[in-house]
Amino acid sequence: MEYRCFGDTYVIRMDRGEEIVSTLAALCEQENIRLASVEAIGAVDRALVGLYDVGEKEYHKREFREPMELTSLLGTVTEKDGKPYLHLHATLCDANMQTHGGHVNELYISATCEMILRLIPGEVGRRPDEDTGLNLFQF
Amino acid sequence: MEYRCFGDTYVIRMDRGEEIVSTLAALCEQENIRLASVEAIGAVDRALVGLYDVGEKEYHKREFREPMELTSLLGTVTEKDGKPYLHLHATLCDANMQTHGGHVNELYISATCEMILRLIPGEVGRRPDEDTGLNLFQF
Amino acid sequence: MEYRCFGDTYVIRMDRGEEIVSTLAALCEQENIRLASVEAIGAVDRALVGLYDVGEKEYHKREFREPMELTSLLGTVTEKDGKPYLHLHATLCDANMQTHGGHVNELYISATCEMILRLIPGEVGRRPDEDTGLNLFQF
Repeated sequence: MEYRCFGDTYVIRMDRGEEIVSTLAALCEQENIRLASVEAIGAVDRALVGLYDVGEKEYHKREFREPMELTSLLGTVTEKDGKPYLHLHATLCDANMQTHGGHVNELYISATCEMILRLIPGEVGRRPDEDTGLNLFQF
Repeated sequence: MEYRCFGDTYVIRMDRGEEIVSTLAALCEQENIRLASVEAIGAVDRALVGLYDVGEKEYHKREFREPMELTSLLGTVTEKDGKPYLHLHATLCDANMQTHGGHVNELYISATCEMILRLIPGEVGRRPDEDTGLNLFQF
Repeated sequence: MEYRCFGDTYVIRMDRGEEIVSTLAALCEQENIRLASVEAIGAVDRALVGLYDVGEKEYHKREFREPMELTSLLGTVTEKDGKPYLHLHATLCDANMQTHGGHVNELYISATCEMILRLIPGEVGRRPDEDTGLNLFQF
Protein backbone atom coordinates (compact mmCIF):
# COMPACT_ATOMS: atom_id res chain seq x y z
CA MET A 1 0.00 0.00 0.00
CA GLU A 2 1.03 3.53 -0.72
CA TYR A 3 -1.06 6.66 -0.33
CA ARG A 4 -1.19 10.43 -0.15
CA CYS A 5 -3.60 12.75 1.60
CA PHE A 6 -4.66 15.84 -0.37
CA GLY A 7 -6.96 18.10 1.66
CA ASP A 8 -9.67 15.83 3.07
CA THR A 9 -9.08 13.08 0.50
CA TYR A 10 -6.79 10.06 0.64
CA VAL A 11 -5.73 8.57 -2.70
CA ILE A 12 -4.64 4.99 -1.97
CA ARG A 13 -2.97 2.28 -4.01
CA MET A 14 -3.12 -1.23 -2.56
CA ASP A 15 -0.95 -3.88 -4.18
CA ARG A 16 -0.98 -7.46 -5.42
CA GLY A 17 -1.33 -9.93 -2.53
CA GLU A 18 -2.73 -7.43 -0.03
CA GLU A 19 -6.14 -8.01 1.54
CA ILE A 20 -8.27 -4.88 1.24
CA VAL A 21 -10.24 -4.88 4.54
CA SER A 22 -7.27 -5.47 6.84
CA THR A 23 -5.05 -3.11 4.84
CA LEU A 24 -7.65 -0.36 5.08
CA ALA A 25 -8.13 -1.01 8.81
CA ALA A 26 -4.38 -0.62 9.32
CA LEU A 27 -4.40 2.66 7.38
CA CYS A 28 -7.29 4.04 9.44
CA GLU A 29 -5.56 3.03 12.67
CA GLN A 30 -2.27 4.58 11.56
CA GLU A 31 -3.83 7.83 10.31
CA ASN A 32 -6.40 8.02 13.12
CA ILE A 33 -9.31 8.02 10.68
CA ARG A 34 -12.67 7.57 12.43
CA LEU A 35 -15.25 8.87 9.96
CA ALA A 36 -14.93 8.61 6.19
CA SER A 37 -16.53 7.33 3.03
CA VAL A 38 -14.69 4.86 0.83
CA GLU A 39 -14.95 4.01 -2.86
CA ALA A 40 -12.63 1.80 -4.88
CA ILE A 41 -12.10 -0.21 -8.04
CA GLY A 42 -9.47 -2.87 -8.70
CA ALA A 43 -8.83 -6.51 -9.47
CA VAL A 44 -8.96 -9.43 -7.04
CA ASP A 45 -8.54 -13.20 -7.27
CA ARG A 46 -10.13 -14.22 -3.98
CA ALA A 47 -13.21 -12.82 -2.30
CA LEU A 48 -15.21 -13.78 0.76
CA VAL A 49 -18.57 -12.03 0.60
CA GLY A 50 -21.85 -12.53 2.40
CA LEU A 51 -25.55 -11.91 2.61
CA TYR A 52 -27.05 -11.15 5.99
CA ASP A 53 -30.07 -13.18 7.03
CA VAL A 54 -32.03 -10.90 9.35
CA GLY A 55 -34.28 -13.77 10.50
CA GLU A 56 -31.42 -16.06 11.49
CA LYS A 57 -29.19 -13.08 12.38
CA GLU A 58 -26.21 -14.53 10.58
CA TYR A 59 -24.26 -14.04 7.37
CA HIS A 60 -24.39 -16.60 4.57
CA LYS A 61 -20.94 -16.43 3.05
CA ARG A 62 -19.54 -17.50 -0.29
CA GLU A 63 -15.93 -17.61 -1.37
CA PHE A 64 -14.81 -16.89 -4.92
CA ARG A 65 -11.37 -17.95 -6.08
CA GLU A 66 -10.97 -16.72 -9.64
CA PRO A 67 -9.80 -13.59 -11.43
CA MET A 68 -12.38 -10.84 -10.92
CA GLU A 69 -12.62 -7.13 -11.57
CA LEU A 70 -13.78 -5.17 -8.55
CA THR A 71 -16.33 -3.00 -10.33
CA SER A 72 -17.46 -1.27 -7.16
CA LEU A 73 -16.41 -1.10 -3.54
CA LEU A 74 -18.44 1.29 -1.41
CA GLY A 75 -18.72 1.82 2.30
CA THR A 76 -17.81 3.72 5.40
CA VAL A 77 -15.32 4.02 8.22
CA THR A 78 -16.93 4.77 11.57
CA GLU A 79 -15.83 4.08 15.16
CA LYS A 80 -16.60 1.29 17.61
CA ASP A 81 -14.91 0.78 20.98
CA GLY A 82 -12.32 3.40 20.10
CA LYS A 83 -11.25 1.60 16.92
CA PRO A 84 -12.00 2.13 13.21
CA TYR A 85 -15.02 0.09 12.13
CA LEU A 86 -15.28 -0.75 8.43
CA HIS A 87 -18.46 -1.60 6.54
CA LEU A 88 -17.89 -2.36 2.86
CA HIS A 89 -19.98 -3.87 0.05
CA ALA A 90 -18.52 -5.06 -3.24
CA THR A 91 -19.60 -5.86 -6.79
CA LEU A 92 -17.25 -8.15 -8.70
CA CYS A 93 -17.26 -9.46 -12.27
CA ASP A 94 -15.85 -12.79 -13.41
CA ALA A 95 -14.26 -13.85 -16.72
CA ASN A 96 -17.70 -13.99 -18.38
CA MET A 97 -18.36 -10.43 -17.21
CA GLN A 98 -21.10 -11.78 -14.94
CA THR A 99 -21.25 -9.99 -11.62
CA HIS A 100 -21.42 -11.19 -8.03
CA GLY A 101 -21.28 -9.29 -4.80
CA GLY A 102 -22.14 -8.85 -1.19
CA HIS A 103 -21.05 -7.68 2.22
CA VAL A 104 -17.25 -7.82 2.20
CA ASN A 105 -15.32 -10.05 4.56
CA GLU A 106 -12.08 -10.42 2.61
CA LEU A 107 -10.83 -9.25 -0.79
CA TYR A 108 -7.37 -10.29 -2.00
CA ILE A 109 -5.81 -8.11 -4.68
CA SER A 110 -4.52 -9.75 -7.88
CA ALA A 111 -3.35 -6.61 -9.65
CA THR A 112 -4.15 -3.35 -7.87
CA CYS A 113 -6.80 -1.55 -5.86
CA GLU A 114 -7.37 2.17 -6.35
CA MET A 115 -9.23 3.69 -3.44
CA ILE A 116 -10.55 7.16 -2.64
CA LEU A 117 -11.21 7.79 1.06
CA ARG A 118 -12.87 11.07 2.04
CA LEU A 119 -12.67 12.27 5.62
CA ILE A 120 -15.94 13.53 7.11
CA PRO A 121 -15.52 16.12 9.90
CA GLY A 122 -17.57 14.48 12.66
CA GLU A 123 -18.06 11.40 14.78
CA VAL A 124 -20.34 8.43 14.21
CA GLY A 125 -20.25 5.33 16.40
CA ARG A 126 -21.86 1.90 16.29
CA ARG A 127 -24.37 0.35 18.66
CA PRO A 128 -25.54 -3.27 18.70
CA ASP A 129 -29.17 -3.44 17.60
CA GLU A 130 -31.28 -6.26 19.05
CA ASP A 131 -33.91 -6.12 16.34
CA THR A 132 -31.53 -6.79 13.44
CA GLY A 133 -28.52 -8.25 15.25
CA LEU A 134 -26.24 -5.71 13.56
CA ASN A 135 -24.03 -2.85 14.72
CA LEU A 136 -25.85 0.22 13.42
CA PHE A 137 -24.80 3.86 13.04
CA GLN A 138 -25.05 5.64 16.40
CA PHE A 139 -25.14 9.43 16.30
CA MET B 1 -34.17 7.38 9.76
CA GLU B 2 -31.63 9.30 11.73
CA TYR B 3 -28.89 11.54 10.39
CA ARG B 4 -26.27 14.17 11.07
CA CYS B 5 -24.81 16.84 8.83
CA PHE B 6 -21.05 17.39 9.13
CA GLY B 7 -19.82 20.23 6.91
CA ASP B 8 -21.29 19.53 3.45
CA THR B 9 -21.89 15.84 4.16
CA TYR B 10 -24.95 14.08 5.56
CA VAL B 11 -24.37 10.71 7.20
CA ILE B 12 -27.74 8.92 7.19
CA ARG B 13 -29.04 5.73 8.74
CA MET B 14 -32.33 4.43 7.38
CA ASP B 15 -34.02 1.63 9.26
CA ARG B 16 -35.78 -1.69 8.80
CA GLY B 17 -39.13 -1.25 7.05
CA GLU B 18 -38.37 2.17 5.57
CA GLU B 19 -38.48 2.67 1.80
CA ILE B 20 -35.29 4.38 0.62
CA VAL B 21 -36.57 6.66 -2.19
CA SER B 22 -39.47 8.19 -0.29
CA THR B 23 -37.41 8.48 2.91
CA LEU B 24 -34.65 10.30 1.05
CA ALA B 25 -37.19 12.57 -0.66
CA ALA B 26 -38.62 13.50 2.75
CA LEU B 27 -35.13 14.27 4.06
CA CYS B 28 -34.33 16.50 1.06
CA GLU B 29 -37.63 18.33 1.46
CA GLN B 30 -37.09 18.80 5.20
CA GLU B 31 -33.46 19.95 4.86
CA ASN B 32 -34.09 21.95 1.68
CA ILE B 33 -31.52 19.93 -0.29
CA ARG B 34 -31.68 20.67 -4.03
CA LEU B 35 -28.30 19.51 -5.39
CA ALA B 36 -26.32 16.59 -4.00
CA SER B 37 -24.72 13.28 -4.82
CA VAL B 38 -25.81 10.14 -3.02
CA GLU B 39 -24.07 6.84 -2.31
CA ALA B 40 -25.26 4.03 -0.06
CA ILE B 41 -24.98 0.39 0.94
CA GLY B 42 -27.42 -1.68 2.96
CA ALA B 43 -29.76 -4.63 2.96
CA VAL B 44 -33.24 -4.82 1.45
CA ASP B 45 -35.92 -7.48 1.06
CA ARG B 46 -38.06 -5.88 -1.63
CA ALA B 47 -36.93 -3.93 -4.68
CA LEU B 48 -38.72 -2.50 -7.67
CA VAL B 49 -36.14 -1.67 -10.34
CA GLY B 50 -36.38 -0.95 -14.05
CA LEU B 51 -34.68 -0.65 -17.39
CA TYR B 52 -35.65 2.24 -19.63
CA ASP B 53 -36.57 1.40 -23.19
CA VAL B 54 -35.65 4.50 -25.20
CA GLY B 55 -37.52 3.24 -28.28
CA GLU B 56 -40.79 2.66 -26.45
CA LYS B 57 -40.07 5.47 -24.00
CA GLU B 58 -41.10 3.42 -21.00
CA TYR B 59 -39.55 1.53 -18.11
CA HIS B 60 -39.63 -2.27 -17.96
CA LYS B 61 -39.86 -3.01 -14.26
CA ARG B 62 -39.11 -6.08 -12.21
CA GLU B 63 -39.86 -6.67 -8.58
CA PHE B 64 -37.61 -8.72 -6.29
CA ARG B 65 -38.95 -10.04 -2.99
CA GLU B 66 -36.08 -11.79 -1.26
CA PRO B 67 -33.21 -10.90 1.06
CA MET B 68 -30.63 -8.89 -0.86
CA GLU B 69 -27.54 -6.89 -0.03
CA LEU B 70 -27.54 -3.44 -1.58
CA THR B 71 -23.99 -3.49 -2.93
CA SER B 72 -24.26 -0.08 -4.53
CA LEU B 73 -26.74 2.79 -4.62
CA LEU B 74 -25.59 5.80 -6.62
CA GLY B 75 -27.35 8.88 -7.88
CA THR B 76 -28.22 12.50 -7.53
CA VAL B 77 -30.63 14.98 -6.02
CA THR B 78 -31.55 17.83 -8.35
CA GLU B 79 -34.61 20.08 -8.56
CA LYS B 80 -37.78 19.95 -10.67
CA ASP B 81 -40.80 22.23 -10.24
CA GLY B 82 -39.38 23.53 -6.95
CA LYS B 83 -39.11 20.06 -5.42
CA PRO B 84 -36.23 17.64 -4.88
CA TYR B 85 -35.89 15.22 -7.81
CA LEU B 86 -34.14 11.92 -7.12
CA HIS B 87 -32.42 9.72 -9.69
CA LEU B 88 -30.95 6.55 -8.22
CA HIS B 89 -29.54 3.30 -9.64
CA ALA B 90 -28.91 0.18 -7.56
CA THR B 91 -26.95 -3.04 -7.67
CA LEU B 92 -28.28 -5.82 -5.42
CA CYS B 93 -27.04 -9.33 -4.66
CA ASP B 94 -29.21 -12.31 -3.76
CA ALA B 95 -28.54 -15.32 -1.52
CA ASN B 96 -26.36 -16.91 -4.24
CA MET B 97 -24.32 -13.69 -4.40
CA GLN B 98 -25.62 -13.14 -7.93
CA THR B 99 -26.31 -9.50 -8.67
CA HIS B 100 -29.26 -7.68 -10.19
CA GLY B 101 -29.93 -4.01 -10.61
CA GLY B 102 -31.49 -1.12 -12.40
CA HIS B 103 -33.14 2.25 -12.14
CA VAL B 104 -34.64 2.43 -8.66
CA ASN B 105 -38.36 2.83 -8.08
CA GLU B 106 -38.62 1.39 -4.58
CA LEU B 107 -36.21 -0.24 -2.13
CA TYR B 108 -37.49 -1.56 1.21
CA ILE B 109 -34.91 -1.96 3.97
CA SER B 110 -34.60 -5.32 5.74
CA ALA B 111 -31.75 -4.42 8.09
CA THR B 112 -30.22 -0.98 7.53
CA CYS B 113 -29.19 1.50 4.88
CA GLU B 114 -26.07 3.60 5.34
CA MET B 115 -26.06 6.62 3.08
CA ILE B 116 -23.62 9.44 2.41
CA LEU B 117 -25.17 12.54 0.81
CA ARG B 118 -22.83 15.33 -0.27
CA LEU B 119 -24.23 18.80 -0.90
CA ILE B 120 -23.05 20.49 -4.10
CA PRO B 121 -23.06 24.31 -3.96
CA GLY B 122 -25.12 25.10 -7.05
CA GLU B 123 -28.39 24.54 -8.86
CA VAL B 124 -29.30 21.95 -11.49
CA GLY B 125 -32.85 21.50 -12.76
CA ARG B 126 -34.60 18.98 -15.00
CA ARG B 127 -36.20 19.48 -18.38
CA PRO B 128 -38.35 17.00 -20.30
CA ASP B 129 -36.44 15.81 -23.37
CA GLU B 130 -38.51 14.80 -26.39
CA ASP B 131 -35.81 12.71 -27.99
CA THR B 132 -35.42 10.31 -25.05
CA GLY B 133 -38.65 10.89 -23.15
CA LEU B 134 -36.68 11.52 -19.95
CA ASN B 135 -36.19 14.45 -17.59
CA LEU B 136 -32.56 15.43 -18.20
CA PHE B 137 -30.16 17.69 -16.28
CA GLN B 138 -30.84 21.34 -17.14
CA PHE B 139 -28.09 23.81 -16.34
CA MET C 1 -22.23 16.91 -23.17
CA GLU C 2 -23.00 19.85 -20.99
CA TYR C 3 -21.62 20.58 -17.52
CA ARG C 4 -21.14 23.05 -14.72
CA CYS C 5 -18.45 23.31 -12.08
CA PHE C 6 -19.65 24.19 -8.56
CA GLY C 7 -16.76 24.54 -6.10
CA ASP C 8 -14.61 21.42 -6.57
CA THR C 9 -17.42 19.43 -8.18
CA TYR C 10 -18.37 19.04 -11.83
CA VAL C 11 -21.96 18.02 -12.58
CA ILE C 12 -21.95 16.55 -16.09
CA ARG C 13 -24.66 15.45 -18.49
CA MET C 14 -23.54 13.33 -21.42
CA ASP C 15 -26.03 12.70 -24.18
CA ARG C 16 -27.44 10.00 -26.43
CA GLY C 17 -24.84 8.73 -28.89
CA GLU C 18 -21.81 10.01 -26.97
CA GLU C 19 -19.13 7.56 -25.81
CA ILE C 20 -18.39 8.09 -22.13
CA VAL C 21 -14.61 7.45 -21.94
CA SER C 22 -13.61 9.67 -24.86
CA THR C 23 -16.10 12.37 -23.86
CA LEU C 24 -14.72 12.44 -20.33
CA ALA C 25 -11.13 12.50 -21.65
CA ALA C 26 -12.02 15.53 -23.78
CA LEU C 27 -13.57 17.28 -20.78
CA CYS C 28 -10.48 16.63 -18.63
CA GLU C 29 -8.20 17.91 -21.39
CA GLN C 30 -10.33 21.02 -21.90
CA GLU C 31 -10.67 21.81 -18.20
CA ASN C 32 -7.10 20.76 -17.35
CA ILE C 33 -8.27 18.17 -14.84
CA ARG C 34 -5.45 15.90 -13.67
CA LEU C 35 -6.69 14.38 -10.39
CA ALA C 36 -10.31 13.58 -9.66
CA SER C 37 -12.75 10.88 -8.67
CA VAL C 38 -15.65 10.01 -10.94
CA GLU C 39 -19.05 8.44 -10.30
CA ALA C 40 -21.94 8.12 -12.71
CA ILE C 41 -25.22 6.44 -13.57
CA GLY C 42 -26.99 6.34 -16.91
CA ALA C 43 -28.21 4.18 -19.75
CA VAL C 44 -26.14 2.67 -22.56
CA ASP C 45 -26.79 0.40 -25.53
CA ARG C 46 -23.24 -0.67 -26.32
CA ALA C 47 -20.45 -1.52 -23.92
CA LEU C 48 -16.95 -2.90 -24.34
CA VAL C 49 -15.72 -4.11 -20.96
CA GLY C 50 -12.88 -6.36 -19.89
CA LEU C 51 -11.27 -8.51 -17.25
CA TYR C 52 -7.52 -8.30 -16.80
CA ASP C 53 -5.62 -11.55 -16.77
CA VAL C 54 -2.56 -10.87 -14.62
CA GLY C 55 -0.89 -14.15 -15.71
CA GLU C 56 -1.19 -13.43 -19.43
CA LYS C 57 -0.97 -9.66 -18.86
CA GLU C 58 -3.86 -8.93 -21.17
CA TYR C 59 -7.50 -7.95 -21.03
CA HIS C 60 -10.24 -10.39 -22.01
CA LYS C 61 -12.90 -8.19 -23.52
CA ARG C 62 -16.59 -8.66 -24.15
CA GLU C 63 -18.93 -6.45 -26.08
CA PHE C 64 -22.58 -5.98 -25.14
CA ARG C 65 -25.02 -4.53 -27.68
CA GLU C 66 -28.36 -4.23 -25.93
CA PRO C 67 -30.20 -1.70 -23.80
CA MET C 68 -28.59 -1.57 -20.36
CA GLU C 69 -28.81 0.62 -17.30
CA LEU C 70 -25.45 1.80 -16.05
CA THR C 71 -25.99 1.05 -12.37
CA SER C 72 -22.50 2.15 -11.37
CA LEU C 73 -19.52 3.81 -12.99
CA LEU C 74 -16.62 4.46 -10.62
CA GLY C 75 -13.04 5.47 -11.18
CA THR C 76 -10.35 8.10 -11.27
CA VAL C 77 -8.65 10.68 -13.41
CA THR C 78 -4.89 10.80 -12.89
CA GLU C 79 -2.03 11.93 -15.16
CA LYS C 80 0.32 10.05 -17.48
CA ASP C 81 2.77 11.67 -19.89
CA GLY C 82 1.19 15.06 -19.27
CA LYS C 83 -2.27 13.90 -20.27
CA PRO C 84 -5.38 12.87 -18.32
CA TYR C 85 -5.42 9.13 -17.66
CA LEU C 86 -8.82 7.55 -17.01
CA HIS C 87 -9.47 4.32 -15.14
CA LEU C 88 -13.14 3.36 -14.93
CA HIS C 89 -15.09 0.25 -13.94
CA ALA C 90 -18.77 -0.27 -14.70
CA THR C 91 -21.71 -2.37 -13.56
CA LEU C 92 -24.52 -2.69 -16.11
CA CYS C 93 -27.92 -4.38 -15.99
CA ASP C 94 -29.75 -5.88 -18.95
CA ALA C 95 -33.49 -6.21 -19.68
CA ASN C 96 -33.76 -9.11 -17.20
CA MET C 97 -32.16 -6.91 -14.53
CA GLN C 98 -29.15 -9.25 -14.55
CA THR C 99 -25.87 -7.40 -14.15
CA HIS C 100 -22.59 -7.51 -16.01
CA GLY C 101 -19.51 -5.42 -15.68
CA GLY C 102 -15.81 -4.90 -15.91
CA HIS C 103 -12.97 -2.58 -16.76
CA VAL C 104 -14.40 0.00 -19.14
CA ASN C 105 -13.09 0.40 -22.68
CA GLU C 106 -16.12 1.99 -24.31
CA LEU C 107 -19.65 2.89 -23.19
CA TYR C 108 -22.12 4.35 -25.69
CA ILE C 109 -25.01 6.33 -24.22
CA SER C 110 -28.58 5.41 -25.23
CA ALA C 111 -30.42 7.93 -23.10
CA THR C 112 -28.23 9.97 -20.74
CA CYS C 113 -25.25 9.76 -18.42
CA GLU C 114 -25.22 11.75 -15.18
CA MET C 115 -21.72 12.12 -13.82
CA ILE C 116 -20.23 13.70 -10.71
CA LEU C 117 -16.51 14.50 -10.96
CA ARG C 118 -14.75 15.74 -7.84
CA LEU C 119 -11.41 17.50 -8.15
CA ILE C 120 -8.72 16.38 -5.71
CA PRO C 121 -6.11 19.05 -4.89
CA GLY C 122 -2.91 17.14 -5.69
CA GLU C 123 -1.00 15.19 -8.31
CA VAL C 124 -0.90 11.45 -8.93
CA GLY C 125 0.86 9.93 -11.93
CA ARG C 126 1.07 6.47 -13.45
CA ARG C 127 4.10 4.19 -13.79
CA PRO C 128 4.28 0.95 -15.77
CA ASP C 129 4.59 -1.98 -13.34
CA GLU C 130 6.49 -5.04 -14.58
CA ASP C 131 4.96 -7.42 -12.06
CA THR C 132 1.36 -6.84 -13.13
CA GLY C 133 1.81 -5.29 -16.59
CA LEU C 134 -0.41 -2.35 -15.57
CA ASN C 135 0.05 1.40 -15.16
CA LEU C 136 -0.23 1.88 -11.40
CA PHE C 137 -0.69 4.99 -9.25
CA GLN C 138 2.66 6.75 -8.79
CA PHE C 139 2.90 9.21 -5.93
